[in-house]
Amino acid sequence: MIRSQLRVVKNIARAMSTPSEAVPTPKSAPKSGKLQFTLKTPKGTKDWAEKDMVIREAIFGQLSSLFKRHGGITLDTPVFELREILAGKYGEDSKLIYNLEDQGGELCSLRYDLTVPFARYVAMNNVQSIKRYHIAKVYRRDQPAMTKGRMREFYQCDFDIAGTYESMVPDAEVLSILVEGLTSLGIKDFKIKLNHRKILDGIFQIAGVKDEDVRKISSAVDKLDKSPWEVVKKEITVEKGQTEETANLIGEYVKLNGSLQEVHNTLSNDAAIQGNEKAMEGLKEIETLIGYVNAFGIQNYISFDLSLARGLDYYTGLIYEAVTAASAPPKNASELKEKSKKQKKDDDDASEYVGVGSIAAGGRYDNLVNMFAEASGKKSTSIPCVGVSFGVERLFSLIKQRVEQSDKVRPTATQVFVMAFGGGKDWTGYLPERMKVAKTLWENGIEAEYVYKSKANPRKQFDAAEKSGCPIAVILGKEEYLENKLRIKRLGPEFADDDGELVDAANLIPAVKEKLAQVHENGVDEITRLIKDL
Amino acid sequence: MIRSQLRVVKNIARAMSTPSEAVPTPKSAPKSGKLQFTLKTPKGTKDWAEKDMVIREAIFGQLSSLFKRHGGITLDTPVFELREILAGKYGEDSKLIYNLEDQGGELCSLRYDLTVPFARYVAMNNVQSIKRYHIAKVYRRDQPAMTKGRMREFYQCDFDIAGTYESMVPDAEVLSILVEGLTSLGIKDFKIKLNHRKILDGIFQIAGVKDEDVRKISSAVDKLDKSPWEVVKKEITVEKGQTEETANLIGEYVKLNGSLQEVHNTLSNDAAIQGNEKAMEGLKEIETLIGYVNAFGIQNYISFDLSLARGLDYYTGLIYEAVTAASAPPKNASELKEKSKKQKKDDDDASEYVGVGSIAAGGRYDNLVNMFAEASGKKSTSIPCVGVSFGVERLFSLIKQRVEQSDKVRPTATQVFVMAFGGGKDWTGYLPERMKVAKTLWENGIEAEYVYKSKANPRKQFDAAEKSGCPIAVILGKEEYLENKLRIKRLGPEFADDDGELVDAANLIPAVKEKLAQVHENGVDEITRLIKDL
Repeated sequence: MIRSQLRVVKNIARAMSTPSEAVPTPKSAPKSGKLQFTLKTPKGTKDWAEKDMVIREAIFGQLSSLFKRHGGITLDTPVFELREILAGKYGEDSKLIYNLEDQGGELCSLRYDLTVPFARYVAMNNVQSIKRYHIAKVYRRDQPAMTKGRMREFYQCDFDIAGTYESMVPDAEVLSILVEGLTSLGIKDFKIKLNHRKILDGIFQIAGVKDEDVRKISSAVDKLDKSPWEVVKKEITVEKGQTEETANLIGEYVKLNGSLQEVHNTLSNDAAIQGNEKAMEGLKEIETLIGYVNAFGIQNYISFDLSLARGLDYYTGLIYEAVTAASAPPKNASELKEKSKKQKKDDDDASEYVGVGSIAAGGRYDNLVNMFAEASGKKSTSIPCVGVSFGVERLFSLIKQRVEQSDKVRPTATQVFVMAFGGGKDWTGYLPERMKVAKTLWENGIEAEYVYKSKANPRKQFDAAEKSGCPIAVILGKEEYLENKLRIKRLGPEFADDDGELVDAANLIPAVKEKLAQVHENGVDEITRLIKDL
Repeated sequence: MIRSQLRVVKNIARAMSTPSEAVPTPKSAPKSGKLQFTLKTPKGTKDWAEKDMVIREAIFGQLSSLFKRHGGITLDTPVFELREILAGKYGEDSKLIYNLEDQGGELCSLRYDLTVPFARYVAMNNVQSIKRYHIAKVYRRDQPAMTKGRMREFYQCDFDIAGTYESMVPDAEVLSILVEGLTSLGIKDFKIKLNHRKILDGIFQIAGVKDEDVRKISSAVDKLDKSPWEVVKKEITVEKGQTEETANLIGEYVKLNGSLQEVHNTLSNDAAIQGNEKAMEGLKEIETLIGYVNAFGIQNYISFDLSLARGLDYYTGLIYEAVTAASAPPKNASELKEKSKKQKKDDDDASEYVGVGSIAAGGRYDNLVNMFAEASGKKSTSIPCVGVSFGVERLFSLIKQRVEQSDKVRPTATQVFVMAFGGGKDWTGYLPERMKVAKTLWENGIEAEYVYKSKANPRKQFDAAEKSGCPIAVILGKEEYLENKLRIKRLGPEFADDDGELVDAANLIPAVKEKLAQVHENGVDEITRLIKDL
């Protein structure tokens, strides 16, 4: 409020007396001549509050801790960037970029993702190596589909390792982070589909796809996560002019999936692969990866899936995507049609079924930073990167379903409600006394509240405590307090008959701490427990 | 990256082959025909990274904990609001609002503060009572003065209590939060200047200021925090047409300051005050406040200062502002001139000397929410509010000066560096083994890193550990590891001769935890210690 509240109040008052030049939309017949407008957030945005906020903060807390455990440091970039930084980065999706109005000076746009600002930061500061995480909002002028969690303002949650390291070492750690992240959020039924750009490139070469056609064929294969093979094959042959033989050969390869070791073995014994330099490069990296993935004990989460093509053309190495069992792609065309129809009904946007199942994804991108460095006239330096992004809104929906029914999720962290009981004509209500006790609790790091009323009756104080969901009451009894005694009592229906225990005021803090240690269901711990699905 | 990285990489690559239509500014002769642009953040914005980020996060952590201790819940509103929500709220400062470009649909603007979105939320959701905190960025197209921490994108850190409560009870708690917040950040030499709108109103009435002149006289008095009385008096008489007598009478009152009790006593015994209804209302509230402030034991921080006039016309009750001793206002005109000159030299902006000293401020504003409710056609309901805002950027500068010299401030939270020592031709470097050990540490919540290299020599591993500043090494000795033994060693120059201790691999976690418990200087604790200036 420092710079603002004064002005706000000042100017609202001013606006009330002199109607502003920015005339609000009249909605209904204004009462007493006042102008009216709708109180809402902009389309595709929302306020985060109450239980949602608690759940979201717990998710962010889990992921931040995870990233810190892996030596990650966080970076906070401005919410808008120079327009030229974003320009030309998102192709036809550039139309979704929010621009700031040209009010003189630099032209700016709201960030569209966290990856471009990260690459800008690394290139701008000549950073040679960094493990950074960033949990922040990004902006897209998309058609919002609230029910599916697609918003115009939404969170991304990225971890990336930039720097020149030994092959597959950071990649394996990012995969481990993916697994640790999802399991720490209580997501158990997921698998990571993994593929390697160089192997796919090799396969297209083997199948006889010309270099200039690789991109469009890759983009057809990319659709295998939402369409069955017969549809994709048709696109490859009819639409994209490849021979039946080429399509069939691609089809033979992309249907391969299994454990890293199995698919690695299959490919290693394939004469065509053996003869393809690119594919063999990729296969060698997979071999290296297997050792590290086994060291981390995450091999069972990974499915080497040659049909995964996301970002194939521009990722430079591993690509991966975590999907939950609940949202696996349809098995065949009729199931797809069924799903699409349902989706359409639910959401009026069937084309976006794809990717709903992806709850985290990423890959290696070795050329992005250098593109910024070169474009700004800096010396070309290769800063290879590998990263993963957790789909926060999607994870939020999954976790919310699981935890929101619990009455253990409460918006405040309050641990102690300070109350006073008494009566009679001389009863002051002990308000300053409650304040003193609360202050002592605060000074000792304990969350405490009391009713903002001199003479509050016991019922109202219990109701307020219950509403806050806090586990302990410290009670100032009219007589007891005069003898320097305080009563500590567990709250909740199961303790209705428990009178609590009387302690010396001097021992309040240790006694409260002991009681709190007995309380396993306190807000913060409980939400973490719920999030982790323990 | 989920939705974005793919597109980013895809489209950057596309942009590199087909130069974008949004042509970057050519800076120098482009090498090999490539277009160039400057890599920078927009004017008045910055990246938060490295130590700054650590310090800032620690400050936010302290303040969030504080707010939670007082039962606060956090609220996250969109970064932009409908333009009509902001319109007419900031008077002539409205020109500083960042508008989003009109790309069809609703017109929006970046939020200018957190108070208007808060009031919008409360009114929109018919919230009857809430204690909310919000730490977030706000946006002003001001002329940035980086050296003074004035940015176009900057953080606000607000705590507000909305709801109808007994007089002065929430106000006293907000004052306690102000004190607890500053002391928890190691700020010791501050005082809170406090005044009451109704008392000032009464004084102006007593002095003979006509009702229609109160605003402009109040605004003159407001300048007493940067100008001496003789300058303000001249403004009141010469510029604003009040009599010498009126000015002198105002001067007599506004020079009053002292403890709440002292100034209260003085005013209570003043016949003119006794005869003024408004002033007596305010004085009664001060009397109530004294009891609560004493209960919280914060009376010594407060100076009842009748010259404080901030927001006078539009705040409805208490107003307050915390200043540090270092930045007290100049005592007389010549000192002011001196300060201005110095300031000018330092900053080329002497007019902004004012307010630099204010590190937190707030007050009671009882009509803001209702204005929104009424403007949107809702039933008029009074939701009185009182709040405080911490000046994060200013606090950051103060704290940074204090802590940045410490080598204890490090960007990562890494606690353990996992190393392997060995040699000879058969030496594998134990990379997968280091990964396994790291994984065990991560699974037990311990921050761990290792060098991303198969055969890293001991020097390089120690260098990397030292660079991270982490306190403990877990060492896989070539022979020792084969016997299932690991070495745990403290890091740092003072432990150079300490070989550490050998533990069974099975006992690694308890042994590391024990060692970490001995380490009082670990990153997280140390930064908190530094921030709190313990």
